[in-house]
Amino acid sequence: MLPTIARESDAVVMIDQRKLPVEEVYVRCRTAAEVARAIKTMVIRGAPAIGVAAAWGIALGMRNSKATGTQKFAAEFFKTCELMAATRPTAVNLFWAIERMKRRFAAAATAGESVDQIKDRLDVEAQAIHDEDVASCRAIGAFGAEVVPGDARILTHCNAGALATAGYGTALGVVRGAVEAGKQVAVFADETRPFLQGARLTAWELMRDNIDTTVITDNMAGALMGQGKVNFVVVGADRIAANGDTANKIGTYAVALLAREHGIPFYVAAPLTTIDLGTADGSQIPIEERAAKEVTHVGGTQLAPDGARVWNPAFDVTPHRLIAGIITERGIFRAPYTESLKEAFAARA
Amino acid sequence: MLPTIARESDAVVMIDQRKLPVEEVYVRCRTAAEVARAIKTMVIRGAPAIGVAAAWGIALGMRNSKATGTQKFAAEFFKTCELMAATRPTAVNLFWAIERMKRRFAAAATAGESVDQIKDRLDVEAQAIHDEDVASCRAIGAFGAEVVPGDARILTHCNAGALATAGYGTALGVVRGAVEAGKQVAVFADETRPFLQGARLTAWELMRDNIDTTVITDNMAGALMGQGKVNFVVVGADRIAANGDTANKIGTYAVALLAREHGIPFYVAAPLTTIDLGTADGSQIPIEERAAKEVTHVGGTQLAPDGARVWNPAFDVTPHRLIAGIITERGIFRAPYTESLKEAFAARA
Repeated sequence: MLPTIARESDAVVMIDQRKLPVEEVYVRCRTAAEVARAIKTMVIRGAPAIGVAAAWGIALGMRNSKATGTQKFAAEFFKTCELMAATRPTAVNLFWAIERMKRRFAAAATAGESVDQIKDRLDVEAQAIHDEDVASCRAIGAFGAEVVPGDARILTHCNAGALATAGYGTALGVVRGAVEAGKQVAVFADETRPFLQGARLTAWELMRDNIDTTVITDNMAGALMGQGKVNFVVVGADRIAANGDTANKIGTYAVALLAREHGIPFYVAAPLTTIDLGTADGSQIPIEERAAKEVTHVGGTQLAPDGARVWNPAFDVTPHRLIAGIITERGIFRAPYTESLKEAFAARA
Repeated sequence: MLPTIARESDAVVMIDQRKLPVEEVYVRCRTAAEVARAIKTMVIRGAPAIGVAAAWGIALGMRNSKATGTQKFAAEFFKTCELMAATRPTAVNLFWAIERMKRRFAAAATAGESVDQIKDRLDVEAQAIHDEDVASCRAIGAFGAEVVPGDARILTHCNAGALATAGYGTALGVVRGAVEAGKQVAVFADETRPFLQGARLTAWELMRDNIDTTVITDNMAGALMGQGKVNFVVVGADRIAANGDTANKIGTYAVALLAREHGIPFYVAAPLTTIDLGTADGSQIPIEERAAKEVTHVGGTQLAPDGARVWNPAFDVTPHRLIAGIITERGIFRAPYTESLKEAFAARA
């Protein structure tokens, strides 16, 4: 299992995903602010992993608190939650994890527990979020494996792998599930500009698992499908609206459209924590725009002229009508999503 | 006018398009072999520019010939033509230019001209190819300007600009034509991985002309269209088959599909020299595959893990049904292309 993120005695430790695949470096965050910065600067990324990191960041921040009275401690807790919420706007898992930590805090506080007891509760809750995420990924993998063709040539976009979660992955969980089910699996990884999560992260973690992987630029997905080289597409998600519209890494929408044109099933794999019934449709999902330099520079190399204007949205929205199914830890949900996704949560409660 | 390529006394001189936009360096090719290498390594690229470069390369190579008898000179000539033909397989302008030089050679030789006279003829012919290319681009620009919306927000892919031709450009010729016609024009340039002709070349030459330009990664075209920010798409071409299927830089196909989905007209701009009536449809166009390193590395930065498998086709084929019109120096041709393109040539003959 890849060590995406772990809680150690005095720190939250993450593999630095900006340095992969060339360097395997770990970042030790010793404060909540350091965890927040790590999320913002994409040391760690991927919707489920961001949620887990925020939970650990809150637990760590409160563990470090010098407050002795619960009132001061509570004020610090909510400030820490705000710090985490301000890191990235699109992945709903982040807000879900923060809310869950708030509920745990409220339960402990109303039960009259001491500051030290609450600190323990928060650590236990973060660990639960972490462990449940891995368990969800494994369940997603098992459900997803059922719809993967026997001789699978799978295209994926970005990295929805072990590195995007607490472990195992969502879209790559489906890949791993299919491999574990004994299917023949070859993966094509869109490099995924501008941050190159596909070339850098997906290829890296699949090659570590000895899964047949070919890197292409994002521009090549259409030609690949045109040549019959893909028979299944699976991607992760950053936020799924109540009607099934799915925000995921920029470029996902074009992949979905190409898949429809070529009659290739396009699946989204995500835990229920990525589904946001409070967002009616994709038009309401906030889309983060990131710095121009992510586009104009790669490493030390300048790609665009000095002063070039850049537009750099980090996500796009794939309309639900292009999605064959949403693979979750509770099974695969299909259109009409407004009904099936609501039922998914009802079954859970 | 940008100095894409020029014949000087003892050399063919080209701006090194691999170094743009950071450095403005010129490469002096003193032999035909050096010109061939410059085409192969993409010092110069773009279908029309490749044709012009090959013509100049042949003229230069034969100018350097030490042969005194026409027979030895003819043998060298055909060897030089082969050298040029072996550089890149997809752009048909290359083969067209070589054929034209062969016809000129044959005319001079059968007229009993001397080696020195033939050398002059070849230089004059190359200059004619060069000048006609610029004239074609200007005519393409004027025809294209008529179909550009008054308040144009134009998406283009790769670089079909002054740098891809002897000057002025095909797709960017249409942009320039629209600007000259007094239209409001803003351009979005797909960066165009892996070689980044959009970020590096299109942005550079449009910014030099003070044309409003925004760089996006290829992944962002769908989101851009979804937000209503594009109302016209124009791209160049490397080879247009008799039925209108168009080979152009990898990724063009997805742009065309996205444009159709959003009801945005998608035009191809190219001189008749890019149209190949001898190729029935897109499936017969040879598609060049280039080295993995173009994908795995940018400058000194490694993007994919050591040993990662890569697929790197340089072009894809956009089916004719996605193309609103083909803008040429003889006007705009529309479906059914099998008929209209044939007529374009008949009118020319």
